[in-house]
Amino acid sequence: MVTDCLTHERISTAVVISKVYKRPLADPIRQIVAFLKKFEVKAYVDANTKIGFNLSDLQSISKRDMREVDLIIVVGGDGSVLGVARTLVDLGVPVLGINKGHLGLLTDVSPHNLEEKLAKIICGHYFLEERTMLDVKVYRKSADGLGEMLGASLATNETVIHSGTIAHMLMLKVTIGQHYMYTIRGDGIIVNTPTGSTAYALSAGGSIIEPKLDVLSVVPMFPHSLNCSPIIIPGKSEVKIEFESPDDLTELIAINCDGQVTMRADTRCQVQICQHATPLKLIHPDDYDYYSLLRKKLDWGKSLV
Amino acid sequence: MVTDCLTHERISTAVVISKVYKRPLADPIRQIVAFLKKFEVKAYVDANTKIGFNLSDLQSISKRDMREVDLIIVVGGDGSVLGVARTLVDLGVPVLGINKGHLGLLTDVSPHNLEEKLAKIICGHYFLEERTMLDVKVYRKSADGLGEMLGASLATNETVIHSGTIAHMLMLKVTIGQHYMYTIRGDGIIVNTPTGSTAYALSAGGSIIEPKLDVLSVVPMFPHSLNCSPIIIPGKSEVKIEFESPDDLTELIAINCDGQVTMRADTRCQVQICQHATPLKLIHPDDYDYYSLLRKKLDWGKSLV
Amino acid sequence: MVTDCLTHERISTAVVISKVYKRPLADPIRQIVAFLKKFEVKAYVDANTKIGFNLSDLQSISKRDMREVDLIIVVGGDGSVLGVARTLVDLGVPVLGINKGHLGLLTDVSPHNLEEKLAKIICGHYFLEERTMLDVKVYRKSADGLGEMLGASLATNETVIHSGTIAHMLMLKVTIGQHYMYTIRGDGIIVNTPTGSTAYALSAGGSIIEPKLDVLSVVPMFPHSLNCSPIIIPGKSEVKIEFESPDDLTELIAINCDGQVTMRADTRCQVQICQHATPLKLIHPDDYDYYSLLRKKLDWGKSLV
Amino acid sequence: MVTDCLTHERISTAVVISKVYKRPLADPIRQIVAFLKKFEVKAYVDANTKIGFNLSDLQSISKRDMREVDLIIVVGGDGSVLGVARTLVDLGVPVLGINKGHLGLLTDVSPHNLEEKLAKIICGHYFLEERTMLDVKVYRKSADGLGEMLGASLATNETVIHSGTIAHMLMLKVTIGQHYMYTIRGDGIIVNTPTGSTAYALSAGGSIIEPKLDVLSVVPMFPHSLNCSPIIIPGKSEVKIEFESPDDLTELIAINCDGQVTMRADTRCQVQICQHATPLKLIHPDDYDYYSLLRKKLDWGKSLV
Repeated sequence: MVTDCLTHERISTAVVISKVYKRPLADPIRQIVAFLKKFEVKAYVDANTKIGFNLSDLQSISKRDMREVDLIIVVGGDGSVLGVARTLVDLGVPVLGINKGHLGLLTDVSPHNLEEKLAKIICGHYFLEERTMLDVKVYRKSADGLGEMLGASLATNETVIHSGTIAHMLMLKVTIGQHYMYTIRGDGIIVNTPTGSTAYALSAGGSIIEPKLDVLSVVPMFPHSLNCSPIIIPGKSEVKIEFESPDDLTELIAINCDGQVTMRADTRCQVQICQHATPLKLIHPDDYDYYSLLRKKLDWGKSLV
Repeated sequence: MVTDCLTHERISTAVVISKVYKRPLADPIRQIVAFLKKFEVKAYVDANTKIGFNLSDLQSISKRDMREVDLIIVVGGDGSVLGVARTLVDLGVPVLGINKGHLGLLTDVSPHNLEEKLAKIICGHYFLEERTMLDVKVYRKSADGLGEMLGASLATNETVIHSGTIAHMLMLKVTIGQHYMYTIRGDGIIVNTPTGSTAYALSAGGSIIEPKLDVLSVVPMFPHSLNCSPIIIPGKSEVKIEFESPDDLTELIAINCDGQVTMRADTRCQVQICQHATPLKLIHPDDYDYYSLLRKKLDWGKSLV
Repeated sequence: MVTDCLTHERISTAVVISKVYKRPLADPIRQIVAFLKKFEVKAYVDANTKIGFNLSDLQSISKRDMREVDLIIVVGGDGSVLGVARTLVDLGVPVLGINKGHLGLLTDVSPHNLEEKLAKIICGHYFLEERTMLDVKVYRKSADGLGEMLGASLATNETVIHSGTIAHMLMLKVTIGQHYMYTIRGDGIIVNTPTGSTAYALSAGGSIIEPKLDVLSVVPMFPHSLNCSPIIIPGKSEVKIEFESPDDLTELIAINCDGQVTMRADTRCQVQICQHATPLKLIHPDDYDYYSLLRKKLDWGKSLV
Repeated sequence: MVTDCLTHERISTAVVISKVYKRPLADPIRQIVAFLKKFEVKAYVDANTKIGFNLSDLQSISKRDMREVDLIIVVGGDGSVLGVARTLVDLGVPVLGINKGHLGLLTDVSPHNLEEKLAKIICGHYFLEERTMLDVKVYRKSADGLGEMLGASLATNETVIHSGTIAHMLMLKVTIGQHYMYTIRGDGIIVNTPTGSTAYALSAGGSIIEPKLDVLSVVPMFPHSLNCSPIIIPGKSEVKIEFESPDDLTELIAINCDGQVTMRADTRCQVQICQHATPLKLIHPDDYDYYSLLRKKLDWGKSLV
């Protein structure tokens, strides 16, 4: 939900995180920290940011202590916010994304009017939005049900379940809660959040979904099927994916989260996907407008002349 | 919502409605009425059904008195349920659809095991599902806001806003609540409910939406745009559609509901769409399974050999 | 075909045509005529252009005499070239499209460097491209085959066969030559040329087709079918479209050509479409590049940041 | 082209090939060989078929001698024909596909009326169709142009150029002959023949293309682009694909042919695709009907009830 309320408590501590160490972001990070301090915010960087950008003059904070912070500021692109979200969502600390030049859907604060927007946010004047995240778990199947858990990851945008190999079709059996949905042949399947509806799932023909909606979406990838429209299901759904292999081979399966984490499995495994208990808290400045972002970022609705 | 509960009060009065007067349905209707009476249900037909099928032996009931009835039984196809829903939804009486041979998504009780299913339903053993409907209103725009209302209709599946003329592009400006969404050129636009997601919107590239979800969907028709993916919006949204005409002509616009009701307007009008206050109450037998219906009715997920 | 040859005979007579009488194009037309005369080209306007723009100082030429002309210059948008092509293609005179500001796919000469390009073209330095056109004929069916012809039109982009009414499905039986293709339910069907592949058919999911290819394309409109991919067929194909009406009603059908000409029929008629005997001869300046036009006009291939 | 002519020289020698050694096809192969001999056809199996099915009683023929044979009979599925085509197309010998139960688009002779159809074919009564194949070559790029060739393969359906890794976007620069087409970001790109238009490219949104057409098709895979419609290009086109990597990494690229052959490359390589000099000669029985095959195999055009 976006709380339509724009009034929140003043920010008193904040941590700045950046992961794109190749970029010359040391000075921008220092400027943000200095600006925060000018407003009497206790300002830190996280340990990796300190090392990665050689910021020995700034004070770092441990992940454990980050739980007490009021605000996490991510400097980078949407990919950086995805990474921070997967790692730190359980802290329950709101996240603000600042882009480094290209407007992002999760990094909607741009450098050029940063200080004005940051000042308002520090004063508690911002929108707070909760974004659904996914819990993705891979289990070995055993004779009497689920066996060992082989891997687990969170996902902010989507999980993609795919043959690890190019041009190799899988047979995927999809169950929603107790209800068998379908068995499809194709390159794989995408399960995405509303946040992910403007990412990979969009290229695969999925609908855009307003971020505040409590739903998930299941989108087949190049299905070898007659009718395989994407489906929107309740956010509370438990999605179970099993594999059928006509030739009884034990194929490799790749389960990818946000294009950043890959887990491996084979056709004797099962993937379970559900909403993560804690949503991502995203902060937007007071001029946030989702449709405007879509138009700017995706040229959504732009007419051909 | 589907109430997962299968236990409801016993049905004590019911009315049978059928609109496909060309079909030889007089005897099936009589059989249903007789079966209801055998179970001590007071059973009526509506006035049009009595006349249309020449059922002088059956007792009819006025629309006014239908408010007190426990169950409306529609005999026909999905189109018949759409029509009954638009006319009678405000009575708040649950509707059961019985198909005449072809399985429907809204008429999921088939003749061949009708009595067994009807018996259970009479005893209160059924699923009760609420389906969102749309309020579609057409206004003249005046200098100081909205003017005269030119027409209004409910819709169970969708409303289609379209140039009345073939191969004629419109420019449609779409606003959701207070937020401008986009202005697109194309043949028109579809606003659909979850119920309508398996109807016209599906052919236009919309996603399937589980009926219980409190959302609407906006799907452009042949947009002359770069990126015009369908969008899923909250069920409580107010959708406003205005027209822009590059050549200042006053073109004719057609606003169609469920393929059954057509209102006319011109480019100086405005269409407003929101959720109808009263949802349609649909009854399903105890073996209802939405995904199974999708697979049977749409061959959804069926693999090519 | 584009003749890769850039060397043609010098242009010695030309006629300038414009149909957008509302626009202030009298002076641009005069300038083109004057420029042509400077190069010793006998330059005319057609009768309607003379009247429509009140160009009493310019010499007009009859349609009959236009056959002897070396070049038809159309000033306007792509729609104007479509109209001229349908009317004048049988003259066999090459056509050059000059746009009035917006680059067009058929009007790829822009005003700002017009004289330089026109000078080269007058000297015979240009690409000559032949574009397939369609012959669309509507017949009444009679007991012993085809009856009266009810209407006929050429089309440069496409013909759209459609219920005249909004949201009304047709059942269309499509035969290619002697081979039955399919019977589909949907809003209608598009048969398009390669030229039309970047117009209406593109919005309906058709592929882009290089203009030089000797093929046609059949694209269903919102088909209520499981699998109804567009198909590319040989340019020499005879496409026959008949109508099936499940309820034996005599519905109105609209057959539209290039969005500009509409013929009416009913379900007892038959539409026949084949390549027109004479192709449209299109002239392009020596820097013509089809893919570049696609990128500029359609943002084709443009990446999201 | 399909030669509409049904009259050819009598078949006097034939070789039977099957590659699905796991299936119990020894007896069916023996029956076909016996049937051929009954018609005084010299009948062989190829060396691998003899070994794979333990057919020591049948006479084998070397690949070298196969050039003199009149007919290659492939027993298996469409995949088997793809494999034989890639290996043996340069022999110029016509190929007949016999399926083992499931109708295929390339194996359109079914076991149940095999002898009747085979008898006619032996007598020279059949359709002969030429199918375009692709030459796919991977080169290292060097300072002064193309360097070493790293790999080459034929393809009957398509070549898929893809990141070897799941959910990993490539930037692909596509040039057709001397003309730059576009640079797209996405999962990859498909270049397919008309034969391949009903295979992988169909799932990716490509049009169906009649097999006799001398065209190729380029279809992007999940493009992160605004407008990236598939395009139909002349069969004689030379398609060149280069890679751009925003982060200057040397990523792995996989180039797959017909889902059966995979070549590896990196972003400093270049892929060149053109029509193979020799087309595949396919034999069809006298009742061959392409649209009928599409309807049976793809449920093409099948209406929802």
